[in-house]
Amino acid sequence: MDTSRTRDIESHSVRLRDLRRDFHRFAEPGWCEFRTANKIISALQGAGWKIALGRQVISPSVRMGVPAAEELQKWFERAAADGVDTSLLAKMEGGYTAVVGTLQFSQPGPTIAVRFDIDANYGTEACHSGHRPAHEQFASSHRETHHNCGHDGHAAIGVELARQLSELRSELCGEVRLIFQPAEEGLRGAKSIVAAGVLDGVDMVMGCHIGVQALQTGEIICGYANILASLKIDANFSGKSTHAALSPHLGHNALLAACTATMNLYASSQHGEGETRLNVGILSAGTSRNTVAGQAFLAAEVRGETASIVEYLETRANEVLRASAEMYGVRVEINRVGASCAATSSPEAVSVIRRASAACPNVRIVRDVCDFRACDDVAEMMNAVQKQGGKAVYFGLGSELSDAHHGTTFDFNEDCLLIGTNVFLNAILELAAKRQ
Amino acid sequence: MDTSRTRDIESHSVRLRDLRRDFHRFAEPGWCEFRTANKIISALQGAGWKIALGRQVISPSVRMGVPAAEELQKWFERAAADGVDTSLLAKMEGGYTAVVGTLQFSQPGPTIAVRFDIDANYGTEACHSGHRPAHEQFASSHRETHHNCGHDGHAAIGVELARQLSELRSELCGEVRLIFQPAEEGLRGAKSIVAAGVLDGVDMVMGCHIGVQALQTGEIICGYANILASLKIDANFSGKSTHAALSPHLGHNALLAACTATMNLYASSQHGEGETRLNVGILSAGTSRNTVAGQAFLAAEVRGETASIVEYLETRANEVLRASAEMYGVRVEINRVGASCAATSSPEAVSVIRRASAACPNVRIVRDVCDFRACDDVAEMMNAVQKQGGKAVYFGLGSELSDAHHGTTFDFNEDCLLIGTNVFLNAILELAAKRQ
Amino acid sequence: MDTSRTRDIESHSVRLRDLRRDFHRFAEPGWCEFRTANKIISALQGAGWKIALGRQVISPSVRMGVPAAEELQKWFERAAADGVDTSLLAKMEGGYTAVVGTLQFSQPGPTIAVRFDIDANYGTEACHSGHRPAHEQFASSHRETHHNCGHDGHAAIGVELARQLSELRSELCGEVRLIFQPAEEGLRGAKSIVAAGVLDGVDMVMGCHIGVQALQTGEIICGYANILASLKIDANFSGKSTHAALSPHLGHNALLAACTATMNLYASSQHGEGETRLNVGILSAGTSRNTVAGQAFLAAEVRGETASIVEYLETRANEVLRASAEMYGVRVEINRVGASCAATSSPEAVSVIRRASAACPNVRIVRDVCDFRACDDVAEMMNAVQKQGGKAVYFGLGSELSDAHHGTTFDFNEDCLLIGTNVFLNAILELAAKRQ
Amino acid sequence: MDTSRTRDIESHSVRLRDLRRDFHRFAEPGWCEFRTANKIISALQGAGWKIALGRQVISPSVRMGVPAAEELQKWFERAAADGVDTSLLAKMEGGYTAVVGTLQFSQPGPTIAVRFDIDANYGTEACHSGHRPAHEQFASSHRETHHNCGHDGHAAIGVELARQLSELRSELCGEVRLIFQPAEEGLRGAKSIVAAGVLDGVDMVMGCHIGVQALQTGEIICGYANILASLKIDANFSGKSTHAALSPHLGHNALLAACTATMNLYASSQHGEGETRLNVGILSAGTSRNTVAGQAFLAAEVRGETASIVEYLETRANEVLRASAEMYGVRVEINRVGASCAATSSPEAVSVIRRASAACPNVRIVRDVCDFRACDDVAEMMNAVQKQGGKAVYFGLGSELSDAHHGTTFDFNEDCLLIGTNVFLNAILELAAKRQ
Repeated sequence: MDTSRTRDIESHSVRLRDLRRDFHRFAEPGWCEFRTANKIISALQGAGWKIALGRQVISPSVRMGVPAAEELQKWFERAAADGVDTSLLAKMEGGYTAVVGTLQFSQPGPTIAVRFDIDANYGTEACHSGHRPAHEQFASSHRETHHNCGHDGHAAIGVELARQLSELRSELCGEVRLIFQPAEEGLRGAKSIVAAGVLDGVDMVMGCHIGVQALQTGEIICGYANILASLKIDANFSGKSTHAALSPHLGHNALLAACTATMNLYASSQHGEGETRLNVGILSAGTSRNTVAGQAFLAAEVRGETASIVEYLETRANEVLRASAEMYGVRVEINRVGASCAATSSPEAVSVIRRASAACPNVRIVRDVCDFRACDDVAEMMNAVQKQGGKAVYFGLGSELSDAHHGTTFDFNEDCLLIGTNVFLNAILELAAKRQ
Repeated sequence: MDTSRTRDIESHSVRLRDLRRDFHRFAEPGWCEFRTANKIISALQGAGWKIALGRQVISPSVRMGVPAAEELQKWFERAAADGVDTSLLAKMEGGYTAVVGTLQFSQPGPTIAVRFDIDANYGTEACHSGHRPAHEQFASSHRETHHNCGHDGHAAIGVELARQLSELRSELCGEVRLIFQPAEEGLRGAKSIVAAGVLDGVDMVMGCHIGVQALQTGEIICGYANILASLKIDANFSGKSTHAALSPHLGHNALLAACTATMNLYASSQHGEGETRLNVGILSAGTSRNTVAGQAFLAAEVRGETASIVEYLETRANEVLRASAEMYGVRVEINRVGASCAATSSPEAVSVIRRASAACPNVRIVRDVCDFRACDDVAEMMNAVQKQGGKAVYFGLGSELSDAHHGTTFDFNEDCLLIGTNVFLNAILELAAKRQ
Repeated sequence: MDTSRTRDIESHSVRLRDLRRDFHRFAEPGWCEFRTANKIISALQGAGWKIALGRQVISPSVRMGVPAAEELQKWFERAAADGVDTSLLAKMEGGYTAVVGTLQFSQPGPTIAVRFDIDANYGTEACHSGHRPAHEQFASSHRETHHNCGHDGHAAIGVELARQLSELRSELCGEVRLIFQPAEEGLRGAKSIVAAGVLDGVDMVMGCHIGVQALQTGEIICGYANILASLKIDANFSGKSTHAALSPHLGHNALLAACTATMNLYASSQHGEGETRLNVGILSAGTSRNTVAGQAFLAAEVRGETASIVEYLETRANEVLRASAEMYGVRVEINRVGASCAATSSPEAVSVIRRASAACPNVRIVRDVCDFRACDDVAEMMNAVQKQGGKAVYFGLGSELSDAHHGTTFDFNEDCLLIGTNVFLNAILELAAKRQ
Repeated sequence: MDTSRTRDIESHSVRLRDLRRDFHRFAEPGWCEFRTANKIISALQGAGWKIALGRQVISPSVRMGVPAAEELQKWFERAAADGVDTSLLAKMEGGYTAVVGTLQFSQPGPTIAVRFDIDANYGTEACHSGHRPAHEQFASSHRETHHNCGHDGHAAIGVELARQLSELRSELCGEVRLIFQPAEEGLRGAKSIVAAGVLDGVDMVMGCHIGVQALQTGEIICGYANILASLKIDANFSGKSTHAALSPHLGHNALLAACTATMNLYASSQHGEGETRLNVGILSAGTSRNTVAGQAFLAAEVRGETASIVEYLETRANEVLRASAEMYGVRVEINRVGASCAATSSPEAVSVIRRASAACPNVRIVRDVCDFRACDDVAEMMNAVQKQGGKAVYFGLGSELSDAHHGTTFDFNEDCLLIGTNVFLNAILELAAKRQ
């Protein structure tokens, strides 16, 4: 390990912070990351990466949970108003916001993919001065979304890693693909990128997450096991509205159907064969106080340690949703809008991260594999690579957090960004250093 | 009864239809009836009525359920864009959208008030061709609101009545006040009009509703008894959002608090001393599927035959809302956003309507007093007038309906509009005919 | 009115109290009133009444809500152990516990029926000294039942009335039938008595209830209107029990199905056309804490102002029960176990009670007809008599109460018993006094 | 390994089956195992074991979830009627039904404890002929309880093991304690046995469970990890009963409070740090259909991978129960009636079982440690022994099952009993074979 190189990387700490804060300020939800993608493309092109985007890297029929046309349009126009180049935007129109940068080295060698998710969540960021992004003026300028899962940091690492790798080009062999994935939230994006062939021929895929199970800056979990499988479903209830006092008996109350579904979904979340999660994250019903609500919408998700647990939970969810609708003479339409399989890091890949971490001067704690206890559709990419004989690792990038993930005051220690870049770089150097 | 006059009125059927359809097409929600009010004002001024509006006829501190500033602004701007005169709009700014027209006759006599409610409901009107407003192209042009309670018809009757009375000016004594009330839906408007003194000195107040208990055109219910008392409440739940898989135990689930509140509100609606109603018309919670919802909103209402029943229901609602919040460590803020007392038509006033109805050639069925089985804040005006020794009547204007009130395909038989105008006119002629 | 007679009746106040307390002490539930019936029979026979009982006065196929054989057996054996004559018991075996006493007068005249309900409720009576029956040692000696609806008082009035009428035999014409009805609670008994022909040929049927809407001793409500129609249903849920930790996903949770049914039944109780009631009075599920409950039972009832409201509520109840079961893959068996129609007192019969009340020196307040706001299957007898051209009245016998009906500390003022006897007697004297 | 000994053991297969079926036929619930204990004592005494029982081996103040006096009395009398010796019964009076047999060998050596749980569950066993215990006439003769968790098998193994060890007495050193524990269901018994000092000085404690994660006869799981921690709670709701139609507003509905608590307990069962379970196994409310239920009872349990998860779940359960009660103006009394810690088998002890299993000719599959995914209060004994420096193992005894544990048709393959006896015997022989 050449420590001068490490020091060199450290000096770029400011750049990482600025990148992250820019992504944070212009948080965009899944499939709407037009401005974010543009920023990534500019930086990668500047560093000599070959760019693939749009339908080249996303299989249209496999995309899940794409927002309504008007929502896509809103963000498309915002990006245009923010000065994103029109011809570029055209390639992403309809929400094809993935970016894959490729750097091919002269000498043959392994194909390494690194994945960064780039989308924000819906919800309103805290605006009080106790929340650093607000205090330091980089809070989301979009009231309806914000980065409260660290993807702004992931994207920043990806961009900086591109710059570093470009500088080290002469020392490397094989090929590196940097995959900037939209719509991780809701597990909507990875499947369609895999289906587009982006992982074909990859020998090793890597990814990381900030602050999951690792809550100190300088701590690395060398690989996650048991990334949970998950399924995301939307339910639309259509009943019959009526005057709440004159004729409640003529209504078919979609609001009550949705409440009953919610309570009973939560009551149906246990399985004897392993860990599960169930959440109803959005419920929206009715338009008028004195009207029996004729319409309701509910967004739910289930997760489990195994595919068969998730299958069970889906069956139960469907039973509960249908019976709740029937109870009120209401119709329900159920749509799968996101999904991801379970995955576990490959032991060999975990070892690579262990060594790469140990070689970072600012890494203080190197921890062994532990359970992820959540989902990430990086699992789809891991499985795809593992199936074709390659290795996969998803590691934990430690950071203190100011709030739980998805909280309104979520923030992380930006010092972790340099560490993350460092670990990826060291790993790639180990795997793809030119044989002399 | 001069039948030539009646025939005369009949010839104005088309005008009534056109008025109603115009109001229908430009449906505006409570406190946002800027364009509707403007249309009424123009017509009344043209017919020589003295107009009072804005804060002259609405007591600001007594208004309830006023929408957020941005909602008010949206409708204000729409009205401006539709060409409503700026100086007039200025008088209504902030949602002061009531209009009171006064016609004072030369000879002293009784003061008679007639009340028309003019607001639409939130909700989206059906757009299929089986729905006449859609088929005949007068469906609401505002996606978020529509007239599905007949107030467009009430307003049309009021405008036409103004025209007729103006023509009969020389035959009348005393004073007539036509009160065009905003925000009846949610029982938000009447109290503030009463508090502004608009009913002071009134000897008789009248009003009507289309299609309540009377479902045939040509049918009149001469007065409603037992208009229910009601209270409208909003509940805002503030919990703590968190990642639904990594840390559900760190969240405070406002969505579950709101669902539990809803189920238990409905379970707490019975009273041994009389009829009750309870509805949760809107529930909206959460912003992100994979986040424990930190925020929820619920709009509820209770109704009862007596003030003490409504008091009981309010107490129960507060208990249920507070305990549901506490169950999840969530804060709840409860606001009263609408209210109206119970009322019953005065027997003497019922007799006036009976005679006025019998004198209409197109009235075929004259029915006795029956229970209203719902609320209308005309009750506040009725009570105010009855308290000062006057009489009050709220009568039923029969019409076939294509759907229950507040349904998405609500429509009525426009022939009833002429009948309604007729009944009011006959009643006023009986009460205020110049003594010769 | 012969006041010496009234004074005479007053002297029997003690007897009424003793009778009531005896019935109270040996409270028996519906269809199990073996000892109660025996006591009534003894008294009536002693006073010269002709007795009909058992299947003579109950149509077996029309009985509803008959307890399980072992429950019937338990009370049968208790009565036997308490010394009830075996041959008499044999006639009532299987729960045929109605008693009809007939007194035929020599001269022809009207046939008058008076109905007294005699059953107690399940539940445990309060035993603290603040509860008079406990303090004065006449609380129910049966832990599982007690008289908390006043039927002990009704039965006492009936027995005393029998004695009085017997003494006045020479002054009367026509025929009097005293109907002592089992199983009013749950509306299980009256239909089968009507079906047995007990009301055939009756010109006037009367009944009364203690303390309903009338809360002062000395107050009489001359007739109830709007006795609600009702339906009683039992639901048995059969799911699949399983180990709650090892295999919750293999269970079909009947306890959750029953809870969901309960919450949603309460949420489905409103109707735009009139007053309703809905109650789930018993819910019993599961046998073992660490087992997913495979069985659940629920006892519910609905009530409404009209037959069509009750039909609606039954339909809704079935929908809710079935969908709740389906939601958990549970079977549900729904049984109708009680029912009664709506009824209203006949105006002519109300007038009789008004005069009879006015003639009682200890009646201080004679109130006009008011709504009953509850059910009583006396309605079935009223309807039967009204249909055959006769008259019917169900009146209110005022009394202070120490708790609401069906409360654990329910008690009434025993002075009302004499008043009740008095009113019935006066009414019969008016209707059946021998024409001289 | 001396195979002649193994063959010898095999010949005792019939005895094991008979023992098991006798325990099955006379299933007794926790703290009521009077007859079961008697049977065990007789057998052990016959084989020369020293017996300790009653308060000698149970610390009274630490017992949890002891049934009501009348329930204890019922089973006590049943046992007496079945011929259990009165002087023995006297020692167990009040539910002190644990039995500890000790065999001290002449030569010093290790102290080994083996634990067998002996209680049955509440619930009614299936009686159709497809259920082998019914078909072969050894189904529970007690309608209210049955062995559907295999404790009848565990107890049989213990008795047979006692007989075998007694025969091998001359070959062994140290001391063996066989602990027959009451009230494992509900985790009520182990703590009080530990507190009585029964595990003091123990170097190795062993136990097994039939059919958990191991579903083939001949399969052994050499040790369970992650036996879940658990807490059992009872909640008693006291509201106010009232007439459901006349005065529902005067009631405080304990049934609705309990239903709401149930739904929301299930909705509060997730934790981000590991597996959880929550069950409401019993809900019982109300006594009368037409009465608002004034009383309700609910039996619940929570489980989790760690003590802190269980603490969280207890806090949430208390919040939910209290808020549900408050919602209806109902009081709630919450009692902890069972508890057990988490535990994991000691690696050294697992190795002993691995070798003992491998040496059994009828063991075909020897599996490594796996998660237990449930609770067993053997964990309290394991922890106690591990704390004092000893080792502990809880292993899986494979068997096909005819239903899930706690199902109404649960049964196992009795061939596993001989295998279980064998494994324990081999383990003890390894640990305590006399050094020659």
